[in-house]
Amino acid sequence: MIKVGIAGGTGYTGVELLRLLSVHPQVTLQVVTSRTDAGTPVCQIYPSLRGFVDLPFTHPDQALLEKCDLVFFATPNGIAMQQARSLLDAGVKVIDLAADFRLTDIATWEKWYGMTHACPDLVTEAVYGLPEVNRAQIESARLVANPGCYPTAVQLGFIPLLEAGVIDTDSLIADAKSGVSGAGRKGEIGNLFAEAGDNFKAYGVAGHRHLPEIRQGLQRATGGKEIGLTFVPHLTPMIRGIHATLYGRLKRDIDLQALFEERYAKEPFVDVMPSGSQPDTRSVRGSNFCRLAVHQPQGSDTVVVLSVIDNLVKGAAGQALQNMNIMFGVAENTALNNIALLP
Amino acid sequence: MIKVGIAGGTGYTGVELLRLLSVHPQVTLQVVTSRTDAGTPVCQIYPSLRGFVDLPFTHPDQALLEKCDLVFFATPNGIAMQQARSLLDAGVKVIDLAADFRLTDIATWEKWYGMTHACPDLVTEAVYGLPEVNRAQIESARLVANPGCYPTAVQLGFIPLLEAGVIDTDSLIADAKSGVSGAGRKGEIGNLFAEAGDNFKAYGVAGHRHLPEIRQGLQRATGGKEIGLTFVPHLTPMIRGIHATLYGRLKRDIDLQALFEERYAKEPFVDVMPSGSQPDTRSVRGSNFCRLAVHQPQGSDTVVVLSVIDNLVKGAAGQALQNMNIMFGVAENTALNNIALLP
Amino acid sequence: MIKVGIAGGTGYTGVELLRLLSVHPQVTLQVVTSRTDAGTPVCQIYPSLRGFVDLPFTHPDQALLEKCDLVFFATPNGIAMQQARSLLDAGVKVIDLAADFRLTDIATWEKWYGMTHACPDLVTEAVYGLPEVNRAQIESARLVANPGCYPTAVQLGFIPLLEAGVIDTDSLIADAKSGVSGAGRKGEIGNLFAEAGDNFKAYGVAGHRHLPEIRQGLQRATGGKEIGLTFVPHLTPMIRGIHATLYGRLKRDIDLQALFEERYAKEPFVDVMPSGSQPDTRSVRGSNFCRLAVHQPQGSDTVVVLSVIDNLVKGAAGQALQNMNIMFGVAENTALNNIALLP
Amino acid sequence: MIKVGIAGGTGYTGVELLRLLSVHPQVTLQVVTSRTDAGTPVCQIYPSLRGFVDLPFTHPDQALLEKCDLVFFATPNGIAMQQARSLLDAGVKVIDLAADFRLTDIATWEKWYGMTHACPDLVTEAVYGLPEVNRAQIESARLVANPGCYPTAVQLGFIPLLEAGVIDTDSLIADAKSGVSGAGRKGEIGNLFAEAGDNFKAYGVAGHRHLPEIRQGLQRATGGKEIGLTFVPHLTPMIRGIHATLYGRLKRDIDLQALFEERYAKEPFVDVMPSGSQPDTRSVRGSNFCRLAVHQPQGSDTVVVLSVIDNLVKGAAGQALQNMNIMFGVAENTALNNIALLP
Repeated sequence: MIKVGIAGGTGYTGVELLRLLSVHPQVTLQVVTSRTDAGTPVCQIYPSLRGFVDLPFTHPDQALLEKCDLVFFATPNGIAMQQARSLLDAGVKVIDLAADFRLTDIATWEKWYGMTHACPDLVTEAVYGLPEVNRAQIESARLVANPGCYPTAVQLGFIPLLEAGVIDTDSLIADAKSGVSGAGRKGEIGNLFAEAGDNFKAYGVAGHRHLPEIRQGLQRATGGKEIGLTFVPHLTPMIRGIHATLYGRLKRDIDLQALFEERYAKEPFVDVMPSGSQPDTRSVRGSNFCRLAVHQPQGSDTVVVLSVIDNLVKGAAGQALQNMNIMFGVAENTALNNIALLP
Repeated sequence: MIKVGIAGGTGYTGVELLRLLSVHPQVTLQVVTSRTDAGTPVCQIYPSLRGFVDLPFTHPDQALLEKCDLVFFATPNGIAMQQARSLLDAGVKVIDLAADFRLTDIATWEKWYGMTHACPDLVTEAVYGLPEVNRAQIESARLVANPGCYPTAVQLGFIPLLEAGVIDTDSLIADAKSGVSGAGRKGEIGNLFAEAGDNFKAYGVAGHRHLPEIRQGLQRATGGKEIGLTFVPHLTPMIRGIHATLYGRLKRDIDLQALFEERYAKEPFVDVMPSGSQPDTRSVRGSNFCRLAVHQPQGSDTVVVLSVIDNLVKGAAGQALQNMNIMFGVAENTALNNIALLP
Repeated sequence: MIKVGIAGGTGYTGVELLRLLSVHPQVTLQVVTSRTDAGTPVCQIYPSLRGFVDLPFTHPDQALLEKCDLVFFATPNGIAMQQARSLLDAGVKVIDLAADFRLTDIATWEKWYGMTHACPDLVTEAVYGLPEVNRAQIESARLVANPGCYPTAVQLGFIPLLEAGVIDTDSLIADAKSGVSGAGRKGEIGNLFAEAGDNFKAYGVAGHRHLPEIRQGLQRATGGKEIGLTFVPHLTPMIRGIHATLYGRLKRDIDLQALFEERYAKEPFVDVMPSGSQPDTRSVRGSNFCRLAVHQPQGSDTVVVLSVIDNLVKGAAGQALQNMNIMFGVAENTALNNIALLP
Repeated sequence: MIKVGIAGGTGYTGVELLRLLSVHPQVTLQVVTSRTDAGTPVCQIYPSLRGFVDLPFTHPDQALLEKCDLVFFATPNGIAMQQARSLLDAGVKVIDLAADFRLTDIATWEKWYGMTHACPDLVTEAVYGLPEVNRAQIESARLVANPGCYPTAVQLGFIPLLEAGVIDTDSLIADAKSGVSGAGRKGEIGNLFAEAGDNFKAYGVAGHRHLPEIRQGLQRATGGKEIGLTFVPHLTPMIRGIHATLYGRLKRDIDLQALFEERYAKEPFVDVMPSGSQPDTRSVRGSNFCRLAVHQPQGSDTVVVLSVIDNLVKGAAGQALQNMNIMFGVAENTALNNIALLP
């Protein structure tokens, strides 16, 4: 049994980890921390967990995270980097669902996240937890940087094209739409039902923290070429789901459908839809799948990729659990084989 | 292994049965019928099932339902009663998710459903599939009438009070609110997003088909007393979920919390919340639970019960599967132990 | 021209006042205060007002409210009572959209609102601003207590029955459902899109501040009888709108439709729908109407009234403007004659 | 007074015309036709119009449309072209809100709309009713082709760039998102609340009827150059609103903000937002405005334009009324000066 701790269990990625982990046959949930809700039963905050999670939240200072085999950090940015070293030193593996270990360039990280990084050397060690790219390294990793939600959807959509070298790399466009849960469980006015409901808007057009992460991932896929990427995130009035609409310019003719199907033939959680498909976000709601469709509208040289994920599952907690399964040699789809809730 | 067929698999209760059954370890799905989509792969209509259900829809005329051990009817009212007898004669058990076998009084049924009943004698045999009331009869049943969604939520909330004889039976009020999926997957203007979205309304105030079903169930709970019930259903802009707010007049003082906790102490899918709770419908979204809370506001003699279910799970497909598990001696929560999707 | 000031213009009732007032032909908007947004142009916070409102928010300490003819308080509870006297002394009329002057019984007010009242004598002077009941007093009022949203919907629905003395007064039930904007523009987790979306729940079952206000209004309608009222508010996933479903027990036979039509025959903003109707909340979205329908389901002795309003218009800003029109001798529907936005 | 008729009044553009026209001081509404609802009072189908519209629907065969000064066609594609000539011959002006007269190339029209055109010569006469481009011609037009919703949002966003010749014309991208009312009031399963709610998807990626209309309009703006355009529409779970995110490649440096502000300086219904803005669709909900913001993210050579309209107002009925005002010499904003409903 894998002894698991969750640091920061009151947010949406926290509760989603709890939903998935509590039915994982090889996991015992040891401790869930929360600074604000210490002492309160987890299922009082999240009644959906009644009968499944009996633990109370533990104050971070009293949580014996070093007794775990693995700790998930579902905390805000800047927390995991404070605690990762001592946990690693104690032999505990770490998966950070926040951004602390995602960017290999420290200066870039510090610019976008507005903090001094606490442990640049661990950034070097950390493995970027996108199994479709880094499965082998994840297997032996002590420290995994779980990808962001937008970066997961965008990278999985562009990677086949970039690895094959069939599109221009200087004019990529990622027009992404996210459900409101992506903003987290924080009392911000802009995310109120009366503000975000029946409304659609772009945000972060001038620059979003996921931009450098996406750029880094796409660059890797090209073997290091410069990437010209315009990334425009939007807020859409739904709870879960990301839909990325990706645009690139083809440099040559290619069977796009075959390219995608071959790239992901062995991937348990990437579903290349039949030609002509237009995936719904709800087709992955609550599940760990990324569904992709590739189009070349009107026979022009513009390729359009549609990529959908559940931002809280493949975009966060599910992918983290997938990484855990890989790190501990458990079948990769254990506790991840649930079907999307539709309707 | 239980060989299962589904008659009428394209509606919401059909796809929900598929979601639940396709991960049931003792079930093999033999056939799913559809008149309109015969020949089409199930997962083309419902991409959420890609990788889980490989069957195509079969035309009802070609479906060898009599080779199954059990057939679920997820068809419109009036279909199951045409086919039940021949299936039963062939040794197949039947669970009807529609209303054909719910009302014991044939004249009442014919009045509310506007049809002549095809097999009144089978109505006599059929067991009303509310496990919290009829578990023993369900165990040995050949034919189960799966309860309606509103009737499930309302009966589970009133039953403890009626069985204990602590409320007046002549002035019960059930103010119920349903998500739009309760109306089914039919192209009706009133259920369009642009009509039902950002809107709330009552409907069927003059009389709703679930009224006689609820009344029959409540009457049983009192040992046959006349029931005076006002039932007002409402449409609320959400996809899944029923919230029933139930009002009754107390005849004497009683520890209401204890009454409810004792009544449902052994029920795997009824969760009596702690005193003072106000359950969210989302706390049961996608799960088979009914969560209940009982209140006596301002110390008056009016008792208020809050009862929430997912109309497609405990209100339809989940309860049907629960009945199947009981009928076949399988652990009652098999394939039903999933946690609500929250947020 | 009526010189108007708004105290507390950043909340939802504030912006709604601005929407309505900025096209009122007899109003000049003098000042809009905000503690948090002082100095910021109003239309920067609310781009919908671009081209219609040029004012910036003014800090309350610098706002010369005493130069106005009328000040609307769209502030939290407890603010208007601090400032009303000096404004009245300066000859300024006051309409409070909060609760400071709604309850005539000071002890009751202090219990439910958890504050000491600053000016009990003004409570005596204040007129409860429900035009359908108090039009004559409003005409000559200096200080108007604008009714709450639930109290408006519930009172308008029960009043014809209570004034006519045709229902029991000891067992009234008001099952009310509100859109999320009713909770105001505050960063509270429970009102996030990801919490309140696709969800339905009751709240305040044990006791809600609008209960004593409703009870007081219903009592007046009976000429002072004790009122036994159970009031259960619910949160429904829509932005605007209240739907109150009201239940009472008839003491004698009466033509309910005629009773309602006669009671409101001369009311410009109460629409008694034809017999059998079931009003949508969207039929009043953005408008000042209350639409009512009265039912006697299955011919029993329970009367059911359906009452819908837009909580921000007839339930707040629109009713306040209606009161202003009455107080200043302007045609009552001036700037209130807009049609609901449907769909 | 302008005597106005509406052909096809039961759809969403029909009811929106009624909402706007019924408070227009120079309009008398003569007749509203409906084949399916002939004889029914308009306000029975649309209770929001109770007290504002007293007419019943008239059967098209009995509607004396030729007695009107102006007829709006809010009918499906292919109807207006059957009736326009006789109306024009009778001296009646015509505004078609459908697509019959939008495309000047008949072959293209017949290909995309799958019909033979009934009156190609009238297509030549018809004026494309985008006032920001064709105001002078609209003034003297007898027959106006009211633009589509997507084409309005996309053209208004691209036109300043194309007229100024500052972007490549061979790689334009329009990623557009629409509320569900854009699909009309038809009982289609895909537009049910339970299907379109809490969901996001692309549609028509291979080709959408608005593509040739947009291309034609953009081509005009360049003086006739070939346009390479990729247009991907998406369905977003809201009722009203279109958000177009437009991408182009800059050929040279230019003050984009000034370019847009100058282009639309005199336009009453185009609002160029301050630099850095990201307009909400709700900021135009129910109003005739198009709000635009122009960005150059990260200083790259990609320009991003955000364009929002209400699809039923500036994208349909409001623009039609704007055209009517221009055609009849009425102040252009008459009955169009309403403020968006926010929240």
